Amino acid sequence: MIKVGIVGGTGYTGVELLRLLSQHPRVQVQAITSRKEAGMKVSDMYPSLRGHVDLPFVTPDDANLSACDVVFFATPHGVAMAQARELLAAGVKVIDLAADFRLQNLAEFEQWYGMAHSCPDLLAEAVYGLPEINREAIKKARLIGNPGCYPTSVQLGYAPLLKHKLIDPTHLIANCASGVSGAGRKAEVHTLMAEASDNFKAYGVKGHRHGPEINQQLRIIAGDDSVNCLFVPHLLPLIRGIHSTLYARLNSEGQAADLQALYEAFYQGERFVDVLPAGSAPETRSVRASNTVRIAVHRPLPDTVMVLVVEDNLTKGASGQAVQCMNLMCGLEEHLGLTQVPVLP
Amino acid sequence: MIKVGIVGGTGYTGVELLRLLSQHPRVQVQAITSRKEAGMKVSDMYPSLRGHVDLPFVTPDDANLSACDVVFFATPHGVAMAQARELLAAGVKVIDLAADFRLQNLAEFEQWYGMAHSCPDLLAEAVYGLPEINREAIKKARLIGNPGCYPTSVQLGYAPLLKHKLIDPTHLIANCASGVSGAGRKAEVHTLMAEASDNFKAYGVKGHRHGPEINQQLRIIAGDDSVNCLFVPHLLPLIRGIHSTLYARLNSEGQAADLQALYEAFYQGERFVDVLPAGSAPETRSVRASNTVRIAVHRPLPDTVMVLVVEDNLTKGASGQAVQCMNLMCGLEEHLGLTQVPVLP
Amino acid sequence: MIKVGIVGGTGYTGVELLRLLSQHPRVQVQAITSRKEAGMKVSDMYPSLRGHVDLPFVTPDDANLSACDVVFFATPHGVAMAQARELLAAGVKVIDLAADFRLQNLAEFEQWYGMAHSCPDLLAEAVYGLPEINREAIKKARLIGNPGCYPTSVQLGYAPLLKHKLIDPTHLIANCASGVSGAGRKAEVHTLMAEASDNFKAYGVKGHRHGPEINQQLRIIAGDDSVNCLFVPHLLPLIRGIHSTLYARLNSEGQAADLQALYEAFYQGERFVDVLPAGSAPETRSVRASNTVRIAVHRPLPDTVMVLVVEDNLTKGASGQAVQCMNLMCGLEEHLGLTQVPVLP
Amino acid sequence: MIKVGIVGGTGYTGVELLRLLSQHPRVQVQAITSRKEAGMKVSDMYPSLRGHVDLPFVTPDDANLSACDVVFFATPHGVAMAQARELLAAGVKVIDLAADFRLQNLAEFEQWYGMAHSCPDLLAEAVYGLPEINREAIKKARLIGNPGCYPTSVQLGYAPLLKHKLIDPTHLIANCASGVSGAGRKAEVHTLMAEASDNFKAYGVKGHRHGPEINQQLRIIAGDDSVNCLFVPHLLPLIRGIHSTLYARLNSEGQAADLQALYEAFYQGERFVDVLPAGSAPETRSVRASNTVRIAVHRPLPDTVMVLVVEDNLTKGASGQAVQCMNLMCGLEEHLGLTQVPVLP
Repeated sequence: MIKVGIVGGTGYTGVELLRLLSQHPRVQVQAITSRKEAGMKVSDMYPSLRGHVDLPFVTPDDANLSACDVVFFATPHGVAMAQARELLAAGVKVIDLAADFRLQNLAEFEQWYGMAHSCPDLLAEAVYGLPEINREAIKKARLIGNPGCYPTSVQLGYAPLLKHKLIDPTHLIANCASGVSGAGRKAEVHTLMAEASDNFKAYGVKGHRHGPEINQQLRIIAGDDSVNCLFVPHLLPLIRGIHSTLYARLNSEGQAADLQALYEAFYQGERFVDVLPAGSAPETRSVRASNTVRIAVHRPLPDTVMVLVVEDNLTKGASGQAVQCMNLMCGLEEHLGLTQVPVLP
Repeated sequence: MIKVGIVGGTGYTGVELLRLLSQHPRVQVQAITSRKEAGMKVSDMYPSLRGHVDLPFVTPDDANLSACDVVFFATPHGVAMAQARELLAAGVKVIDLAADFRLQNLAEFEQWYGMAHSCPDLLAEAVYGLPEINREAIKKARLIGNPGCYPTSVQLGYAPLLKHKLIDPTHLIANCASGVSGAGRKAEVHTLMAEASDNFKAYGVKGHRHGPEINQQLRIIAGDDSVNCLFVPHLLPLIRGIHSTLYARLNSEGQAADLQALYEAFYQGERFVDVLPAGSAPETRSVRASNTVRIAVHRPLPDTVMVLVVEDNLTKGASGQAVQCMNLMCGLEEHLGLTQVPVLP
Repeated sequence: MIKVGIVGGTGYTGVELLRLLSQHPRVQVQAITSRKEAGMKVSDMYPSLRGHVDLPFVTPDDANLSACDVVFFATPHGVAMAQARELLAAGVKVIDLAADFRLQNLAEFEQWYGMAHSCPDLLAEAVYGLPEINREAIKKARLIGNPGCYPTSVQLGYAPLLKHKLIDPTHLIANCASGVSGAGRKAEVHTLMAEASDNFKAYGVKGHRHGPEINQQLRIIAGDDSVNCLFVPHLLPLIRGIHSTLYARLNSEGQAADLQALYEAFYQGERFVDVLPAGSAPETRSVRASNTVRIAVHRPLPDTVMVLVVEDNLTKGASGQAVQCMNLMCGLEEHLGLTQVPVLP
Repeated sequence: MIKVGIVGGTGYTGVELLRLLSQHPRVQVQAITSRKEAGMKVSDMYPSLRGHVDLPFVTPDDANLSACDVVFFATPHGVAMAQARELLAAGVKVIDLAADFRLQNLAEFEQWYGMAHSCPDLLAEAVYGLPEINREAIKKARLIGNPGCYPTSVQLGYAPLLKHKLIDPTHLIANCASGVSGAGRKAEVHTLMAEASDNFKAYGVKGHRHGPEINQQLRIIAGDDSVNCLFVPHLLPLIRGIHSTLYARLNSEGQAADLQALYEAFYQGERFVDVLPAGSAPETRSVRASNTVRIAVHRPLPDTVMVLVVEDNLTKGASGQAVQCMNLMCGLEEHLGLTQVPVLP
């Protein structure tokens, strides 16, 4: 059994990790830390876990994390980079669900997350945990920066086009929408139900942290630094789900290509990426509470491609992807513990 | 024109007051206070008011409230009782939307609101602002305790039965449900959209502040101190709306009565109470954003009466009722500014 | 492997059966019938099942249901009773998720379902499929009437009180609320999103089909024909979830009893019934997409007990319970295929 | 008083017309027709109108529409064109809320609405009822094609840019999202609450009826037949509200322009178009149940403009706009009956 520790289990990515790991056939969760809630049973905070998770929150000091095989950080930005070095030195594999190990550019990290990076050497070593793009590196990694929720959907949507150089990479538009669980479990006015339900709006219109992450990764995927993606997030009145509507201008090769066949070939054998039949429009509910991404590719104008992508932001967009990475890092079958059927209706 | 001041306009009852008063043909809103937001335009916080309310928030010192005819307190509990005396002395009529002037029993007030009452003499003078029950007293009042949202629906539902002494008053059950706007605009985890939407639960199961208010008022209405009502609130995954399902055991007079005719007669001429045809089930949406209460009376068992009541908790359950009281206190037609048609769908 | 057939897989109980059975370790789904959709892949109607269910809908003639070990009817009322005899004769176990085998009183069945019962002898043989109440009979049954969604929650809530004769059974009040998936996937105006969301109401106020089922079963549980329960359903603006608020008057034994201890003892060892700690208020989301019922018992007044029950109407209220029955009938461990952790948030 | 008739008052645009017209100070609603519901009181179908609308539905024969000053068609496509000629001949002004008089190209009409146009001469005469673009023509019109909901938001968003020729008109992208009330009150599976809530998706991905309407009108506004707009609608899990996120590439004049100032100038004096301060993101709830459109203009990249537009699809996107046209046609002040403050929260 893989011994797992979770740092910061009180947020939504934490409870989602516990939902998945408590059913994982090869995992034993050893400890879940929360300074603030130490002593409280996890299932007292999340009654959904009654009968499935019997652990209490413990302080980091009591957690004995260095005896774990894998430690997940489901914490605010900045926590993992303060603790990763010691765990790695103890031979523990580390997966950070926050942003500490996503942005390779230190200046960008500091600009968007408001703090200096405390361990650039580890950042340089860290592997970006998107298995469909980075599988082999993940298998060998000891430190994972787990992708952001929006960037996961945008990368998987654009990857086939960028890899095959079929579009003008300089003017991509990613019009995205997310459920409110993406904002986490912090008490804030703008995510109150009386504010965020029965409502829809764009947000982050002056720039959003996932913008630089998207551009960094799309440039790596394309092998082309000219990639530039305008990322516009919107807030959906639902809890779980991300929908990305991606636009690009096809170049002449792109206009000649069979895009449907291209996408099907690109993702053939990928257990968690489902290319829908031509003409489809994926629904967020079709992946609810599952680790699957569904993609449809359209060519609404001769020179324009539109890609529609749905994911559950807490599963494939966060905790499910982290478990997928863990499976790869630990030599397990990639899908273990991730075979939940989406909940519909 | 009636000169109106609003103390504490940043919450939901504040913005609802502004929605109603900005359209009121005989009102001029003079000042809206908020220490914290002083200087900010009200419409910057609530863009829905752009083009309708051009005032900024001001500090209480700058508000010159004593020059107003009427001042509404849309504040947390405890604020109105600290400021009412001075305003009343200046000849200003005061309407408190919080609970400072609802509970006549000082011990109950202290128990449920966690503070001593600072002006028992004013409390004794204050009139409970439920026009359908207390109209004449309201007309003459200079200080109003505006009813709680739940108590409004429960009182209007039980009043005909209690006034006519048709039920066993000692075992009333008020099974109620409210939208989340009733919890106000405070940043709290339990009313986050990711917590409160797609969910339903009872709350306050160990006792709720509206319980003693309900019992106080039902006893007054019945003229019978043996009235005892078990009040059980539930939290609905919607923003506006209260639905009360009221149960009581009919006595022999009650079993002999024509309850439908009784309710229609009791509320005849009441502009804001609509008794539905026999066999109806009122919907919260049928009163959305309006000052109307709709009521249906049923006799599901020979000795049991069930009354269904819907109201908009922010309108008839709070700000609309306060405006209705203001109209009465100022000698205006009772319905002025309150003729909005419910928004459906 | 248990060979399973599903008659009528296009509705919500059908897709929920498929969600559960496609993950069941000892089940092979052989055929899913739909006359109307024959030839269509199930996953074309329900993309959530892509990668999990590869079968097409087939006509009943092509389904070869008599070769199955178990056949579920996820059909409108009246279908199962027309087909059960032939299947039973072929040695197939039959579980009807509709109401054909719930009401033992033929007149009541005819009154509430608008059709004569076509096989009273089978009805007499059928076992009511509520395992926590009827486990031994279910194990030996070949024909199951799977309980209604509301009746499941009401029975489990009242059973400890009735079995121990602690309440006045003649005046029970079950104030219940359900999500819209309970109405099924029929195209009807009143369950359109623009009608049913942002709304709350009672319905079935002149009587609801689950009323006689509730009374039949509570009488059996109590061993007392005087049981009478007023059942009042309400429609919640959410998809999945039932919440029942149950009231009863305690007799002197009841007032002397330790109700919390009683409930914990009554349901000790029950995997799918979770008695919450004293003072709790269960949330529908705490059982979302799981087969668990959570119960809290309260004594808000000295002589009054209130029981709060939550379930997922499609899982424990329908398809999950049916699978639980199948496990028992087939000699499998009762929880197989039903260990999903509730999805929260 | 203006005598008004409404043909087809059972749908959402019908009830919204009644909400607005019942409060209009210069209107008397004379008749509301519905063949199917003739004899039923309108307020029995829509209890929200109890106390505001006392009329029954009548058959067209009983409606005496030719005695009206204005007749609104809130009917399915194809009805208005069958009845308009006779009404116009009787001197009645006609406003069609459906699509019969929107598309000037007969072939496009036939392609998208599946029927031949029965009165091309009237179509040629009809005025497109978008007052901010077409005010003078509307004042003189006797026949109005009321704009589609999406096209209203897209036109008002792009108009300043197109009129001033600041963008490449050949590659516009209108990424739009609408609440479910836009689909009307027809009983259909895909708009059931259990299908459409807790979900988000694109739809009409192979083409949507509002696409040709948008292109027709943008070409007229620009005076440029090269305009081409890719219109992609999405379905929001809420009832009322449209949000349009509009993209375009700025030409060199556009890059040099002060877009904020341009928008403010363009809409100066427009009562129902609110240009938000720079940096804003309009919310659908900020216009809920009102006739206002709010617009924010952004320049996220040096050569790219993004315009965000919100409207209530039933008010400014349908019935409110129709009343605005009526006011203009009848020589009334344009805002009469349309001064409702948006309902927030």
